[in-house]
Amino acid sequence: MIIVLKSDLSEEKLHRLAERIESNGFYTRPVSQYSKLLLSVDGPNTEKIAKEVTKWQDVEEVIDGHFPYYLASRKCIKTNSVIKIGKGDNQVAFGGKEIPLIAGPCAIETAETALAIAEKVKEAGIKVFRGMLFKPRSSPYSFQGIGKNGLEILDEIKRRTGLLIVTEVRESSEADLVSDHVDVFQIGTRNMSNFQLLKHVGQTNKPVILKRGMGSNIVELLCAAEYILSYGNPNVILCERGIRTFEQYTRFGLDIAAIPSVKELSHLPIIIDPSHSSGKSSLVSALTMAGIAAGADGVIMEVHDNPEKAFSDGTESITPSQLKELIKLGKKVASAVDRRI
Amino acid sequence: MIIVLKSDLSEEKLHRLAERIESNGFYTRPVSQYSKLLLSVDGPNTEKIAKEVTKWQDVEEVIDGHFPYYLASRKCIKTNSVIKIGKGDNQVAFGGKEIPLIAGPCAIETAETALAIAEKVKEAGIKVFRGMLFKPRSSPYSFQGIGKNGLEILDEIKRRTGLLIVTEVRESSEADLVSDHVDVFQIGTRNMSNFQLLKHVGQTNKPVILKRGMGSNIVELLCAAEYILSYGNPNVILCERGIRTFEQYTRFGLDIAAIPSVKELSHLPIIIDPSHSSGKSSLVSALTMAGIAAGADGVIMEVHDNPEKAFSDGTESITPSQLKELIKLGKKVASAVDRRI
Amino acid sequence: MIIVLKSDLSEEKLHRLAERIESNGFYTRPVSQYSKLLLSVDGPNTEKIAKEVTKWQDVEEVIDGHFPYYLASRKCIKTNSVIKIGKGDNQVAFGGKEIPLIAGPCAIETAETALAIAEKVKEAGIKVFRGMLFKPRSSPYSFQGIGKNGLEILDEIKRRTGLLIVTEVRESSEADLVSDHVDVFQIGTRNMSNFQLLKHVGQTNKPVILKRGMGSNIVELLCAAEYILSYGNPNVILCERGIRTFEQYTRFGLDIAAIPSVKELSHLPIIIDPSHSSGKSSLVSALTMAGIAAGADGVIMEVHDNPEKAFSDGTESITPSQLKELIKLGKKVASAVDRRI
Amino acid sequence: MIIVLKSDLSEEKLHRLAERIESNGFYTRPVSQYSKLLLSVDGPNTEKIAKEVTKWQDVEEVIDGHFPYYLASRKCIKTNSVIKIGKGDNQVAFGGKEIPLIAGPCAIETAETALAIAEKVKEAGIKVFRGMLFKPRSSPYSFQGIGKNGLEILDEIKRRTGLLIVTEVRESSEADLVSDHVDVFQIGTRNMSNFQLLKHVGQTNKPVILKRGMGSNIVELLCAAEYILSYGNPNVILCERGIRTFEQYTRFGLDIAAIPSVKELSHLPIIIDPSHSSGKSSLVSALTMAGIAAGADGVIMEVHDNPEKAFSDGTESITPSQLKELIKLGKKVASAVDRRI
Repeated sequence: MIIVLKSDLSEEKLHRLAERIESNGFYTRPVSQYSKLLLSVDGPNTEKIAKEVTKWQDVEEVIDGHFPYYLASRKCIKTNSVIKIGKGDNQVAFGGKEIPLIAGPCAIETAETALAIAEKVKEAGIKVFRGMLFKPRSSPYSFQGIGKNGLEILDEIKRRTGLLIVTEVRESSEADLVSDHVDVFQIGTRNMSNFQLLKHVGQTNKPVILKRGMGSNIVELLCAAEYILSYGNPNVILCERGIRTFEQYTRFGLDIAAIPSVKELSHLPIIIDPSHSSGKSSLVSALTMAGIAAGADGVIMEVHDNPEKAFSDGTESITPSQLKELIKLGKKVASAVDRRI
Repeated sequence: MIIVLKSDLSEEKLHRLAERIESNGFYTRPVSQYSKLLLSVDGPNTEKIAKEVTKWQDVEEVIDGHFPYYLASRKCIKTNSVIKIGKGDNQVAFGGKEIPLIAGPCAIETAETALAIAEKVKEAGIKVFRGMLFKPRSSPYSFQGIGKNGLEILDEIKRRTGLLIVTEVRESSEADLVSDHVDVFQIGTRNMSNFQLLKHVGQTNKPVILKRGMGSNIVELLCAAEYILSYGNPNVILCERGIRTFEQYTRFGLDIAAIPSVKELSHLPIIIDPSHSSGKSSLVSALTMAGIAAGADGVIMEVHDNPEKAFSDGTESITPSQLKELIKLGKKVASAVDRRI
Repeated sequence: MIIVLKSDLSEEKLHRLAERIESNGFYTRPVSQYSKLLLSVDGPNTEKIAKEVTKWQDVEEVIDGHFPYYLASRKCIKTNSVIKIGKGDNQVAFGGKEIPLIAGPCAIETAETALAIAEKVKEAGIKVFRGMLFKPRSSPYSFQGIGKNGLEILDEIKRRTGLLIVTEVRESSEADLVSDHVDVFQIGTRNMSNFQLLKHVGQTNKPVILKRGMGSNIVELLCAAEYILSYGNPNVILCERGIRTFEQYTRFGLDIAAIPSVKELSHLPIIIDPSHSSGKSSLVSALTMAGIAAGADGVIMEVHDNPEKAFSDGTESITPSQLKELIKLGKKVASAVDRRI
Repeated sequence: MIIVLKSDLSEEKLHRLAERIESNGFYTRPVSQYSKLLLSVDGPNTEKIAKEVTKWQDVEEVIDGHFPYYLASRKCIKTNSVIKIGKGDNQVAFGGKEIPLIAGPCAIETAETALAIAEKVKEAGIKVFRGMLFKPRSSPYSFQGIGKNGLEILDEIKRRTGLLIVTEVRESSEADLVSDHVDVFQIGTRNMSNFQLLKHVGQTNKPVILKRGMGSNIVELLCAAEYILSYGNPNVILCERGIRTFEQYTRFGLDIAAIPSVKELSHLPIIIDPSHSSGKSSLVSALTMAGIAAGADGVIMEVHDNPEKAFSDGTESITPSQLKELIKLGKKVASAVDRRI
């Protein structure tokens, strides 16, 4: 259960209110986000006291029941949230007029290949690089990423190109490890419901790209975002990356309607991943255009200068020259919907 | 099994070839489409003779096995097919530079309301009207459409507005009944695998909008098109209208990747239905833009001047003024991808 | 909209009631089934009069809105319906203690093979034979069944073995054609929403096995049954044959929960098809046992004495000796749940 | 990539073999399980050396590519694995003749209610209790479980009833925390792809119930098991708990075919969860019978003595008296398939 409080509530009153609830056998956790003050109430059978609490003064609203989320909702924040990464000239914003593109290989392989790709995507006009060190893989015998040894490579890429860097984290310790080296955490589709990880990155201030679970619905995605927001981190960027469907021509079904649906329900920016959703490089450009036209706030895609030699997911990577074509077209589509790349 | 023959094959040779196959206990059906000559071979266990036939002179290729389609494929026709409806100034083409929009109410209700909507969509710049008389409904007690009594209304709309007209047919007799009154048959999602109906419209020359089955994959859609093509009618327009997924925020999941996927596999035009797929008028514009940007060759959507009073599917209908806004934006997106509305 | 009337309503009163509704611009159709009297009201905007009609005397209930079905529901009939096929000693009943098994090849191929299989399944204890002459196939170039030429074969099988016969019909004319030769119509998954066909078989008295659409939910299946029931035919046997899911190890996902779910919602018998749902002969026995244990009222399965040489779907056919093993085990499981095979 | 080695390979030879591979820039990890010796090779582009390694002496097989799993496969172990929990008289085995039932509330609420339910399920004949302290919940504001405070309650239940205890762990630290208090770890559907957690419990010897991800296919489930097996823990019990489908009458679609499918592919025991899959207490008994008849090696279900007052998932809990009925019937079905409850 979550109690939305009057925002000018004094610390003392909050404290008393919490005590009163705890005396009924519940745990409380004050949540402060977006200048809002909330009290999360944990424990079995909250509906028992929900009705009563609604009547208390200083209480604006009590939200209980299935799938409750508040901070991530339009109800809480009416205008689109803009999440910024990087600083100064280098800054990139998700959720405003700009539609940032994120590009890079599926995984960092070697310093040489990673740097080569980084330079090529930079040259194509990209400002954010995807540099994955830790790969969640279905099989324990598939390439798991080069791990922490890759941090130096990321540092080197940053130094040489100035690119902002996104990397995936699969557990709290990985988030701590990479934190000083990267600009954005990615939480992958397999970890959208890894609530411990969500809570952990919620206690940092680092922007987080939160990918939708392949078997999760839109409301569950927003609830996952709520974990991060309610633990203090407002910098959440949602990502539609395809869901499981019966269609097998593509690896996953990009749920394009999720973009305007999320815009209806939430103020958070949402980007798309045309590479993982389709699993086919030939479809990446069309899906990117679709995403931009539907209102996506960014695109994350795989680029490899030699897709056939990529260590994983090569079939879905586009080449740097295909990237340039894609950007050229993307600029036009973005402009048509009054955005810009 | 389908045998692709050398296209300059004489009638006599074709006849002898067919006889030879029939003498093995199979039925044959000559198929002539796109200046190609094929022989469809029906009967159990065709693989038995497939290998042998491959070696025959005059035979270019033998296609057998799961999901065989040939006429609908890029292999058969390399360039995009353009399907024209109407005549002269009134003509509209699907599959070329133009992206025609089709609009109208979910169902024809009364002459007055239908005419009023027709005039408004015409005024908005629409050239093709969806005027459904026969509604396939899950329940026998739901509104089944006004039926053949509506033909006069369609005639009147045509006379007054000059709009081209699409109507749904659920069985062969309905196709015959409406044939002189409408410009395009629609075969709905529930009838994509009604093969008798496919064969019947395949024997006409009337353009057909063939909607994807809600539980059918892309290859099955192309096979359904193959029925129509192989029975003689080249005028097939495919329609992605959403598939069944676990996501319940929208009624169906618009499979946006189906557009570039179909373009890879087939030369046939493909349009989208943002209204039925989402079931939410608020999502129609964004999905339309996505479709256009992804390469759709047209859009069919529901428009009602009083959605709340619509007899069916009101929640997914947009108003004429929303349609105007949608067209304004659509023109820009179309132009960005070098098309036009 | 459907109006449930007091069952002792005089013809005259019914007539007047219908007139009163028609004077409001609606069509009415009297429905008589299970000693119930109903009036189906067709036309746009029935909700306008629904409220008023509720108040009329002689009206028990008015059902309107999404997915309305009444005759197929437990609300209408509390006890399980038992559908009988055949006569005298030969009679088989679906929905009672007995769990009839239906077996035979995917398609009738030749008189010899069909007879051989028929004799073997008969010998195994089977009373109902599946003998398909018309095959709905995704591709126009796949084996479409031997068609009406097979009627003689079915007659011969009946004469020699006394087996009751199920055959699939894809359109009304096929139903008429086979009617005198077979005991049960099957409406396949691709035709569950072929409402014209449903209405047609609804006007006969022949038992119908109605297979669930691969993309249709349980309520839609019951609505499809309602078409048949409301046109006069009470002999509907539902069939769960697997739905489309993302899992690809099996061809379709047998929705085992559909069995007890249908039992909650409806009085109609429901059988399962373990062959088509799985597409793997190795899974047929386990799925059959699951179905029986979950309450299925019958099983339809594919048997071929030489599965590798079957013209279609050979990989899912079991052999006659596997059938015997299956029956042996099935008898035990049936007995455990107080049923019998 | 995984290299299966001759099992009598000396430590020294293994060491040299690993060195040789590492000199090519790969990481190696020796895996020892089921008296088999394997070498897992991690790094990009393993296919480069896969072919060469195949030729090396001492190498039995090299497995590479999509979804590789070996230890979990029938290829590795031909006979069914039996996983034992508890000791002496109290011991329960999964994968043998016995089909153990696991029952208890969705979550531990209070000592009183938990003990009351424990005593009732014990009385009904249950030997394993599900006692969840940590609940992964979609929303941060839903009841998260009573946490470590509940350990005392579990101890008390064990002391008083002798029931073996299963509890869910969401992260490594929770596994460490509960390890001395419980007999089985459960890894829930949302954590099936939490590979860090899989590796961690793989390094213990505690039996693990591994639930299938709601968006994961069967092969991915086996790959997840492979993580645990390859890190040293052979005690893996798989659990089919329903997948996401378009059908909404049940919360998830119990994939009954997964049971015989897993039996084909793997030697590991598999149990079912009829409660979470259906979300409806009225369906639990039928699904349990289906599972047993299909070959399930156990059932985990929710039991609450006052389902309407349960803090979470009350609608899917059965009562102790329903449990007794279920067991009575289950014994018969188990016996029919030559198993016992």
